[in-house]
Amino acid sequence: MSYYEKHVFFCTNIREDGGQCCSQHGAQEMRDYAKSRIKKLDLNGAGKIRINSAGCLDRCDEGPVLVVYPDAVWYTYVDKEDIDEIVDQHLVNGKVVERLKI
Amino acid sequence: MSYYEKHVFFCTNIREDGGQCCSQHGAQEMRDYAKSRIKKLDLNGAGKIRINSAGCLDRCDEGPVLVVYPDAVWYTYVDKEDIDEIVDQHLVNGKVVERLKI
Repeated sequence: MSYYEKHVFFCTNIREDGGQCCSQHGAQEMRDYAKSRIKKLDLNGAGKIRINSAGCLDRCDEGPVLVVYPDAVWYTYVDKEDIDEIVDQHLVNGKVVERLKI
Repeated sequence: MSYYEKHVFFCTNIREDGGQCCSQHGAQEMRDYAKSRIKKLDLNGAGKIRINSAGCLDRCDEGPVLVVYPDAVWYTYVDKEDIDEIVDQHLVNGKVVERLKI
């Protein structure tokens, strides 16, 4: 069994060469927002959900990206509404959000 | 199918309160070492293996820790020999290293 039922990694990398990267698209803010939503739902912790920052996930052209493990489902997102949908539909209810999947 | 066959996250967090954390145990150096080994083996990239840094994985007391997804197998490690074993046995050959598993 997975230590976290859903372990989410937001790419929050900042590229030093100035190239396209997730951090230019609000990645850190969206990660913080997701983390606070999970905490409010009291779903954070072992056996439940963990929201993490990660270094470059190397899918820059498709960014901003996040990945949900162990499901291995990748998403892109634009705003808090997208994050809400990923949280409510996938993390809480286990249903993949097809329109945001990459 | 998982975008990366094995996606590895090293906790490289630095705790600001001075408490025990993975970064005090060579996490960044070991992550860099694992990354360079995978590159030398030409196993980095989509469909293969990705070595990432991550923020606090919240298993500080068991640290330093890394996790291999989508397998959801967690390890602790001490030195490069441990990293070699995780790379050669688990990442390359798909066999869990029981002695380092947490």
